[in-house]
Amino acid sequence: MGWRVTRAHLEHLAIGAGILGTGGGGNPYLGKLLARSFLDAGGTIEVVTVGEVPDDALVCSVGGMGSPTISFERLLRENEALNALRALERHIGRAITHVVPSEIGGSNSTIPMVVAVQAGIPVIDADGMGRAFPELQMETFCIGGVSPTPAALANYHGQAIVFDHIDDAAALERYARAVAIQMGGRAGYAFPAMSGNELKATAIPGTLSLAIRVGEAVLDARAAHRSPIDAICATSGGQVLFAGKITDVQRELRGGFARGVVILEGFGRFAGEIVRVDIQNENLIVRAGDGRILAVVPDLICLVDSDTGEPLTTEILRYGLRATMIGIPAPSQLRTGRALRVVGPAAFGYADVSYVPLPGVYGSAEG
Amino acid sequence: MGWRVTRAHLEHLAIGAGILGTGGGGNPYLGKLLARSFLDAGGTIEVVTVGEVPDDALVCSVGGMGSPTISFERLLRENEALNALRALERHIGRAITHVVPSEIGGSNSTIPMVVAVQAGIPVIDADGMGRAFPELQMETFCIGGVSPTPAALANYHGQAIVFDHIDDAAALERYARAVAIQMGGRAGYAFPAMSGNELKATAIPGTLSLAIRVGEAVLDARAAHRSPIDAICATSGGQVLFAGKITDVQRELRGGFARGVVILEGFGRFAGEIVRVDIQNENLIVRAGDGRILAVVPDLICLVDSDTGEPLTTEILRYGLRATMIGIPAPSQLRTGRALRVVGPAAFGYADVSYVPLPGVYGSAEG
Repeated sequence: MGWRVTRAHLEHLAIGAGILGTGGGGNPYLGKLLARSFLDAGGTIEVVTVGEVPDDALVCSVGGMGSPTISFERLLRENEALNALRALERHIGRAITHVVPSEIGGSNSTIPMVVAVQAGIPVIDADGMGRAFPELQMETFCIGGVSPTPAALANYHGQAIVFDHIDDAAALERYARAVAIQMGGRAGYAFPAMSGNELKATAIPGTLSLAIRVGEAVLDARAAHRSPIDAICATSGGQVLFAGKITDVQRELRGGFARGVVILEGFGRFAGEIVRVDIQNENLIVRAGDGRILAVVPDLICLVDSDTGEPLTTEILRYGLRATMIGIPAPSQLRTGRALRVVGPAAFGYADVSYVPLPGVYGSAEG
Repeated sequence: MGWRVTRAHLEHLAIGAGILGTGGGGNPYLGKLLARSFLDAGGTIEVVTVGEVPDDALVCSVGGMGSPTISFERLLRENEALNALRALERHIGRAITHVVPSEIGGSNSTIPMVVAVQAGIPVIDADGMGRAFPELQMETFCIGGVSPTPAALANYHGQAIVFDHIDDAAALERYARAVAIQMGGRAGYAFPAMSGNELKATAIPGTLSLAIRVGEAVLDARAAHRSPIDAICATSGGQVLFAGKITDVQRELRGGFARGVVILEGFGRFAGEIVRVDIQNENLIVRAGDGRILAVVPDLICLVDSDTGEPLTTEILRYGLRATMIGIPAPSQLRTGRALRVVGPAAFGYADVSYVPLPGVYGSAEG
């Protein structure tokens, strides 16, 4: 059943999407403020389930690409993704009927809500990653066979670019990112357009509401003086992989991505152990001190504040933070052979690392 | 009066466009071979004068952008510019009726001929630079007020990108070049689309035939054992600025452009003098040994082989070549205040250099 987004949902989503974003997706709080400003102005954000989308609907994923570090002032004039949607509609000659998030994490969970209220159409409770990933071709839509183009990119001036006849989603990603960099590091995208049928065959359903449930569970646990960590695990299907103090953060911006390594020294039942996390925007691989791999992309490697359960996104990691690492098994759509070629360790340059799936089930049983 | 391109015209154009290209525009010979292959296959390349273009025609400039160094194999499958034209037509919803070169120089003089024969439409005896320049916003079309978008970029796979709602031609240039680099360094463009009226108000007329006349004069002079240098000056309205041996070539590829400095030590009546030529793809500024400026962009600074009159494009300059430098006054459309802000020395980073026009008249009196 569909539902309407409340201010409380946005509070929960900011936390839950931050956690499921596995370090990436950018700051979830600015997206929350932006979406809230539309609710405050009397806007309505309608959410529908995947099952409620007509087979012949014209669905489009929307979001922002480029540097996640954007100014608050700029964010509040957010119309980049709407401009991209409009450019795509002009190109196709038909109106988009539903938007869907491309990823769960940071502002890309809330931008579709903003576009939905701007365009007066519903947003779908689903996404194309079940987490955050750094590149557009990593969406399950294209992995599942949806054509990457036509696709549109736009900035807040209304400058728009339509990509067409590009079968290779990775090539589209390169072209779009090159333009986004030239646009000042930030652009909105509308990509890919698909039928309701295609959505049902490729999307990861229920992820918006999952993120909201995870965030709500964190806030409830804090209020009841229970463990937010336990609450995250119970709602997400995750398990604690490690808990420790961050003792080293190496991070650099290279090729438009934040790459780095984070070292944690264990405390509590992990005292005396260390782990190393490899990062490319998102947390990709966790290794124990002996080199043994504890978890690997596409499984979700989520770092949260050990006391509050607050998500620790890549850009706020720093020496001294007490972090708990929660591993959440990736949705089944990311674990197929075809998907692993696009989102598995080799796709991130780890040719020698095999994907060894975390046990468990993505999302909670109550979802 | 319109005319049909012959194989002889292509021979002449390769030389004349190489000379008027002022060092840039890439290798003119590959473009010649490509155009010739269409004539050999029975194709017809119709050229019309600017005056023959109907006011309500839908004209488009086409060409290639990116590295001028492309393989012969790739060139002979040339359909990048045609693909861009088709993408633009799909976007506009109307057929382009005429193509026009964006610049005179290298392959961008012949690519419009190839597109013309491929699309079965005429090419116009005119261009948007009267020479070669490195960037799209330097066309007289946009300087004269033609809207830069919609514009299209495509590669030989048929991948296409349509730019829209971009008022700033320099921004369009940045976006398009960023994509061209990602496309492997080479893409075809269709930009800008304009009416016959707009063409007449902004194009530099007669430049294709001027380039052909210059090249023909060189070949005639060689055959008659007369001076090719005199022939170039007589047909182009140019004057010899210097003649000397190249003693130093500093050249590097930076930001997609070949930048460098060339030093010539004079011989003949220039013995004992040296000049320094600053290059950014094209020859931009010539200074005497005492720093005095002899010629400056947008005036044409053409380096040719002193004996044969063969054009010396930037990429073939090397120690020991005997070069004659011919200065040709820029067309009047490039000398307006508005144009000089886009194509004058300051536009190339020489904020302290004023444009001091060469005396004389662009093109020959017989043109």
